[in-house]
Amino acid sequence: MRNIDATTTTPAFLQRLDDCGNPRLKQVLSSLVTHLHDFAREVKLTEAEWMQGIQFLTATGQMCNDTRQEFILLSDTLGLSMLVVALNQAKPPGATEATVFGPFHVDDAPAAEQGADIAGGAPGTSLFVTARVLDLQGRPIAAAEVDVWQADDEGLYDVQRPELGRTRRARGVLHTDTDGRVRFRSIMPTPYPVPTDGPVGQMLLASGRHPWRPAHLHFMIRAEGFETLITHIFRDPDPYLDSDVVFGVRSSLIGNFVAHDAGTTPDGAKMATPFYTLDQDFVLAPKA
Amino acid sequence: MRNIDATTTTPAFLQRLDDCGNPRLKQVLSSLVTHLHDFAREVKLTEAEWMQGIQFLTATGQMCNDTRQEFILLSDTLGLSMLVVALNQAKPPGATEATVFGPFHVDDAPAAEQGADIAGGAPGTSLFVTARVLDLQGRPIAAAEVDVWQADDEGLYDVQRPELGRTRRARGVLHTDTDGRVRFRSIMPTPYPVPTDGPVGQMLLASGRHPWRPAHLHFMIRAEGFETLITHIFRDPDPYLDSDVVFGVRSSLIGNFVAHDAGTTPDGAKMATPFYTLDQDFVLAPKA
Repeated sequence: MRNIDATTTTPAFLQRLDDCGNPRLKQVLSSLVTHLHDFAREVKLTEAEWMQGIQFLTATGQMCNDTRQEFILLSDTLGLSMLVVALNQAKPPGATEATVFGPFHVDDAPAAEQGADIAGGAPGTSLFVTARVLDLQGRPIAAAEVDVWQADDEGLYDVQRPELGRTRRARGVLHTDTDGRVRFRSIMPTPYPVPTDGPVGQMLLASGRHPWRPAHLHFMIRAEGFETLITHIFRDPDPYLDSDVVFGVRSSLIGNFVAHDAGTTPDGAKMATPFYTLDQDFVLAPKA
Repeated sequence: MRNIDATTTTPAFLQRLDDCGNPRLKQVLSSLVTHLHDFAREVKLTEAEWMQGIQFLTATGQMCNDTRQEFILLSDTLGLSMLVVALNQAKPPGATEATVFGPFHVDDAPAAEQGADIAGGAPGTSLFVTARVLDLQGRPIAAAEVDVWQADDEGLYDVQRPELGRTRRARGVLHTDTDGRVRFRSIMPTPYPVPTDGPVGQMLLASGRHPWRPAHLHFMIRAEGFETLITHIFRDPDPYLDSDVVFGVRSSLIGNFVAHDAGTTPDGAKMATPFYTLDQDFVLAPKA
């Protein structure tokens, strides 16, 4: 096809997929490119804006490394990640809801024993967590893998602190006991801004949006025969529960954090400073 | 807003633009994100596909460097670049039409004198070009900048040959004389595949598309008081005129390449081998 104009571009592209042997890829690409073209026509995208888009995407890709995923952050802040969660993670009644994965998970988090302090020296108010992993009938799921990660009280994940090198802290992987339980000590999560030193930060600033997330702990829970659950536990009150920059808050995911005065902790130690506890049940849906 | 579902994601995002102080950015982002969300809903994008998309975009960004622009190549092969050209480069009758910029322009192309051999040793059949730059009334435009670039007869641009380092060849920047003319010697363009060793190549392969472009010379022509013209000159016959992987062919941009037997060249030299000539007029539109 020659002499393409603003209306014939899209059918010309679609025709090129005639020999695509993968029907799902054909469907996804057809829809994606039709919407991309419709967008360009709808706003009459200028060449300067197109080039700005090219440069934005390039910078976003080049910001990524093994501990930073700027494209996930972009997807998160545009509401796409939460939409994909909503499209795919409809849970049966009673199961814990899912939310965004976020860009700060790592695959080499340290294994942690029951009762361990996973903070690893990260600054923050002490928090003692007991979590139970249950099935829809309320029965404990033993040997479930509970992968936890969180920011410290300066709002930074370990991977955002170059001075830590590859040292991991405020994250860990535990396994439930026969009662479906994990216990660990960590620190209280606090609200934090997503990283604003890259292209996504520039986009937020230019759009008049704040970069804040409400305080949360991340959990990824895996167990044989169950759907993997990727979720957060939030805390109320929090100034950002209704304006989370990544649209991730669900009322059902607000945990019962309880403040305690200095004194005896759940693990029997003495704390000279106030601390918090969190008792949280996670209910997994059976594998489809 | 909390408890976002598959339909409320989009209004939730749009509401976040309430404080955007740049009306055009607000318009562009609103349209872009609405289409992005519509796409995800339309195909019911899975989490694995979403992650594949994140990885594809990341790899595309990381393929870019100062001599390779994989995102422009992606835009080109999805028909977006040609659509943006069509939206912005409607020319008055009589003006030379525009086509895609492509990813192989460099800003440090060597200046070339009238009659120079810009091939710089690039392999190919000799080509003698005379180009005139005119206004809509047919009057010559003097001192216009004519930036030319092309692949060699192995289908490679200089920047695609690591062995050349930063040596530039088969490209150059000339200026028209008082008759609006530039003359230079180069090599015949040949059809070539766009680079297939990156994410865009994988996308083309997976979609059952060939990666070929018909043979062409690139021109970018700038002159005071005129719209900059970014275009190609193609050659007929060529097996890819109707299936250019970047959708760039316009019938009006097919040049009159003429084959000559060995003998006297336009610059008066003797050629022991056959050669080609191209006489091409470019008509610039006045600046709006």
